[in-house]
Amino acid sequence: MVQDQRPVAIIMGSTSDWPTMRRAAEILDELGVGHEDLVVSAHRTPDRLVRFATGAEDAGFSVIIAGAGGAAHLPGMVASMTTLPVLGVPVQSKALSGMDSLLSIAQMPGGVPVGTLAIGEAGAKNAGLMAASILALGDAELSLRLKSWRQKQTDAVLEAPQTDAPVI
Amino acid sequence: MVQDQRPVAIIMGSTSDWPTMRRAAEILDELGVGHEDLVVSAHRTPDRLVRFATGAEDAGFSVIIAGAGGAAHLPGMVASMTTLPVLGVPVQSKALSGMDSLLSIAQMPGGVPVGTLAIGEAGAKNAGLMAASILALGDAELSLRLKSWRQKQTDAVLEAPQTDAPVI
Amino acid sequence: MVQDQRPVAIIMGSTSDWPTMRRAAEILDELGVGHEDLVVSAHRTPDRLVRFATGAEDAGFSVIIAGAGGAAHLPGMVASMTTLPVLGVPVQSKALSGMDSLLSIAQMPGGVPVGTLAIGEAGAKNAGLMAASILALGDAELSLRLKSWRQKQTDAVLEAPQTDAPVI
Amino acid sequence: MVQDQRPVAIIMGSTSDWPTMRRAAEILDELGVGHEDLVVSAHRTPDRLVRFATGAEDAGFSVIIAGAGGAAHLPGMVASMTTLPVLGVPVQSKALSGMDSLLSIAQMPGGVPVGTLAIGEAGAKNAGLMAASILALGDAELSLRLKSWRQKQTDAVLEAPQTDAPVI
Amino acid sequence: MVQDQRPVAIIMGSTSDWPTMRRAAEILDELGVGHEDLVVSAHRTPDRLVRFATGAEDAGFSVIIAGAGGAAHLPGMVASMTTLPVLGVPVQSKALSGMDSLLSIAQMPGGVPVGTLAIGEAGAKNAGLMAASILALGDAELSLRLKSWRQKQTDAVLEAPQTDAPVI
Amino acid sequence: MVQDQRPVAIIMGSTSDWPTMRRAAEILDELGVGHEDLVVSAHRTPDRLVRFATGAEDAGFSVIIAGAGGAAHLPGMVASMTTLPVLGVPVQSKALSGMDSLLSIAQMPGGVPVGTLAIGEAGAKNAGLMAASILALGDAELSLRLKSWRQKQTDAVLEAPQTDAPVI
Amino acid sequence: MVQDQRPVAIIMGSTSDWPTMRRAAEILDELGVGHEDLVVSAHRTPDRLVRFATGAEDAGFSVIIAGAGGAAHLPGMVASMTTLPVLGVPVQSKALSGMDSLLSIAQMPGGVPVGTLAIGEAGAKNAGLMAASILALGDAELSLRLKSWRQKQTDAVLEAPQTDAPVI
Amino acid sequence: MVQDQRPVAIIMGSTSDWPTMRRAAEILDELGVGHEDLVVSAHRTPDRLVRFATGAEDAGFSVIIAGAGGAAHLPGMVASMTTLPVLGVPVQSKALSGMDSLLSIAQMPGGVPVGTLAIGEAGAKNAGLMAASILALGDAELSLRLKSWRQKQTDAVLEAPQTDAPVI
Repeated sequence: MVQDQRPVAIIMGSTSDWPTMRRAAEILDELGVGHEDLVVSAHRTPDRLVRFATGAEDAGFSVIIAGAGGAAHLPGMVASMTTLPVLGVPVQSKALSGMDSLLSIAQMPGGVPVGTLAIGEAGAKNAGLMAASILALGDAELSLRLKSWRQKQTDAVLEAPQTDAPVI
Repeated sequence: MVQDQRPVAIIMGSTSDWPTMRRAAEILDELGVGHEDLVVSAHRTPDRLVRFATGAEDAGFSVIIAGAGGAAHLPGMVASMTTLPVLGVPVQSKALSGMDSLLSIAQMPGGVPVGTLAIGEAGAKNAGLMAASILALGDAELSLRLKSWRQKQTDAVLEAPQTDAPVI
Repeated sequence: MVQDQRPVAIIMGSTSDWPTMRRAAEILDELGVGHEDLVVSAHRTPDRLVRFATGAEDAGFSVIIAGAGGAAHLPGMVASMTTLPVLGVPVQSKALSGMDSLLSIAQMPGGVPVGTLAIGEAGAKNAGLMAASILALGDAELSLRLKSWRQKQTDAVLEAPQTDAPVI
Repeated sequence: MVQDQRPVAIIMGSTSDWPTMRRAAEILDELGVGHEDLVVSAHRTPDRLVRFATGAEDAGFSVIIAGAGGAAHLPGMVASMTTLPVLGVPVQSKALSGMDSLLSIAQMPGGVPVGTLAIGEAGAKNAGLMAASILALGDAELSLRLKSWRQKQTDAVLEAPQTDAPVI
Repeated sequence: MVQDQRPVAIIMGSTSDWPTMRRAAEILDELGVGHEDLVVSAHRTPDRLVRFATGAEDAGFSVIIAGAGGAAHLPGMVASMTTLPVLGVPVQSKALSGMDSLLSIAQMPGGVPVGTLAIGEAGAKNAGLMAASILALGDAELSLRLKSWRQKQTDAVLEAPQTDAPVI
Repeated sequence: MVQDQRPVAIIMGSTSDWPTMRRAAEILDELGVGHEDLVVSAHRTPDRLVRFATGAEDAGFSVIIAGAGGAAHLPGMVASMTTLPVLGVPVQSKALSGMDSLLSIAQMPGGVPVGTLAIGEAGAKNAGLMAASILALGDAELSLRLKSWRQKQTDAVLEAPQTDAPVI
Repeated sequence: MVQDQRPVAIIMGSTSDWPTMRRAAEILDELGVGHEDLVVSAHRTPDRLVRFATGAEDAGFSVIIAGAGGAAHLPGMVASMTTLPVLGVPVQSKALSGMDSLLSIAQMPGGVPVGTLAIGEAGAKNAGLMAASILALGDAELSLRLKSWRQKQTDAVLEAPQTDAPVI
Repeated sequence: MVQDQRPVAIIMGSTSDWPTMRRAAEILDELGVGHEDLVVSAHRTPDRLVRFATGAEDAGFSVIIAGAGGAAHLPGMVASMTTLPVLGVPVQSKALSGMDSLLSIAQMPGGVPVGTLAIGEAGAKNAGLMAASILALGDAELSLRLKSWRQKQTDAVLEAPQTDAPVI
């Protein structure tokens, strides 16, 4: 059912993570990279987690972006069941502002890697960009689109007015 | 193979966690509570994790003590696949001294509980004591043994010399 | 006065902790587990603390859930005076967002265990679930209700729409 | 049994705290202030804690210095049962280096004060000095001895050689 | 000008600290303890700091309460220039919520003590209570008032309704 | 000079980072992935940094692993000058144990992604594994080798003796 | 184009940093010190960063103030390409309140100095003051203006009403 | 007594800070910048602190480097009494590894700037380098020596062997 044009899976522990994780979806849309967005809770739907992670490669996914908050086990557990590259997004948590999410995702033991991005929306956006950079290794057109996107980002800063009183 | 007299499973992510987790085993031995000690890595043996957690109740376990360090996912993932009480022991990690382990175990989302103990050996010992206190609810003799153990602990402090220069 | 059908005591340091601790009460209500909710301040009513903790077992309680914030001494002090299982809920504090509460509850010395849950409402809810899981060891019907509750929780995630744009 | 000349009680949770707490005893000795040193574990000897704290004033103590580590409840619990000034010393803990001790002692709720000193030996020494400064309010001779001690401390720095290469 | 009936000085780094520090003033008012409230900035008025600290004892003060936020140097610098007991209140700072204030006040080197209270209003209130407990050592009537205040605090908790649904 | 068989660049800020970063090199060796190991200091050789980062793609690199400690700017600055995937390894620092390194690498702003691994040797090893998983997307033989390596890792845990007293 | 009367460059990673960094501009305006305010993103405009930093001295700048948030690389990277004094301002970040910014700026390795100020607006203001104090070493009139400014600041505190109820 | 050729004062709270602060002295020696090294304890010699700080400019100093640990008040208090540029070095403390020192020095309120360097020896070295960069603004020969030093530092990295197995 999953097709070649959806090489990225964006998974998250809860629909409440979507306002964060949509930043990954949006950047992939901008770059013309297909993605599938799924709620897979490590803790509340462990069976789905196992099915998703063990079947992700056969389902045609190339990169997995997983976001979770607090004791954030989703990225690491997915990584334990696939050899696809897994990118983790620490969602900002209520009490500890995502410090718990960050440590729960980044501090993986040797042997099971998760590439961790920043806490919150910036991290989700960057997860999308990093997925694109990975896919671009085998897709020259995507590589061009990615470079173009990055250039536009640079231009936006360069073209902003440079005066003693920056416009906000 | 697991018998009624082994109601507690002590699981850990790696044999390197045993110097910490043996404190749980020792206290259960002192209290006459049977236990089985297993290495179940959430990340390196996810299949075994699933088999263990989903089969723990049928295997006759009543309480699960799970220790792990760093991005410590073992206690929470076991808890996601069983309704048995799960006690988590944050193993002291190298770089962050167990603060990462503590947050990864304690900050579980609502719906899947893990009772977290202190970082390191004190936490492992207390996990054993707490498992005993849970089992003692249905075992009057264990309850007496536990009370006796606690009394002895109190007496040891009370009987220590109380002078201006405490003996070390 | 306390009856068999109220096996759980939910205690808290102040009425201001109730918005957090009510999550424990609500989940116990859902699961049909009786509970008594009491304000017992470790610091402002130490006599009541002693009376409560030393009398809790005789009063018919089986599990104690204690919530407190800041220098949160209530769970640990209760645990020092009973062999019943004590679950601690770190209430989110104003300045340090509950990090002080978490460390004050979790970092108990060896010999006196407190099973610590997450900071705030998620922790209170999980304290209720964990109390139920402990009681379910000796109550087959409760065990079924707990499993059913957990299954419903899983189903709620599974049945949520899985599209590229999750509904918030 | 306690006499007027022992106005300070130095209490600690465990004999393992003595290497830290002896710094309080030593400074009081230097200043000619009597003290009694006791092991009173909040968690392992709660009855003794209650007896000590409720009886401290009648026993003739004027200031209480309490040291503890980890989930350090001793100073706050003593303070809850007396109106004598209580000084708390956070003992350096193994995993978290005393940050847990500091927060467990300092972050007391409004209504029950503990004057907290620094983590470890410097804090114990300062607890002794602060106890002396409190007693000196009603003891002109002690006030002079304290000022003399402080002056000597200043002189020791002032008289140290001041060269481009300080002697270590 | 300062009279016997104003034995407590409440000093703060800035008028912006007053909403916090007024809790100290209020509790002293309740207890009938005179106090003088002054803005003395360690950093912006170092001369006044020196004059205040070196003259505090001659001016008739017995206890100094000093509140400051961020790199909070006021309590420690005052303590370096007097042998009166100094109580420090970490004011909650904007970026770091008072963790910087707490460490800047509590972590004094051996030789110059500051009794540190909790971050924010609770700490200020407790500074007032602790000042009263110090003064009460030489003032039997104040001692009675303080005990009465503490009893009322206890009664307020004890008399609150104890039902399954605490009134907020 | 760089050839197709060296698709991974391992760069580090200082030779003192090599004991950490060699874990990345070792795992790539085990997996038969070529790599070039270079010292490129963001701060001490900024020109080399610019030349390396802007030329990395033309030089034939596909993935860049960058390790640094403290105010660790190397991974992020490289990422700012290339669209290749960049993996960051926080080297354990002396004073803050790598917490500064972790935050300096992980907390990148939106637009310039760095996939961050754990602090220290585990992170370096995982950076190697993640580089391999990225390259394996376009290299079926590497994919098999990676799966085989992961299976061996799992088998090593599974085949370890499972007794009540784990062998250390 | 840059003239002698603009000896200070205020650079920032994004226009969103201007509400913070304008405090540096304002204080320089008050002190009659010319400044140029520029957006130079370390990550999004690395070329401009290189051009700015390597050309800053020839362009007539004497002091550089650089503000950035999160993984804040701007101050350190500028410092790596100039021997002019560089002052860093940690901008308060969303998730971690500027603790990440502070560590990313302050924890520079030996060899490349950045003088770091406080998190947020106070830090920006102080960066302006410190730039002035540096320039004042070679400008007697500025030195007088700076001393006058500092005196006014002191007077503002001294002249504020000193009553028992400070005016807010 | 202080001469033109000693434009830098290196002060520290205690001789125990010298092993850290000598890194500042050494780099100044390398660069041919005179310095005077003094022990000035903010807390134990407040009078000397006042005399030093208020007289530093008249004594011919141009830049002050101040190192201290724990509740590190020395740099900020000196800065409050001079308009000379003050650089602060957080000395690594025993319990909290210098995090307390860093916050006590960096988090100064608006109006009194301290340029803070990294924790420990790297910070001391960089304080020396930054002092040199400030003095170099008015000393063309020093500017050349500083540039030469920086170039040598760069060359040392560039000339180190670049192989797959870096020499340690």
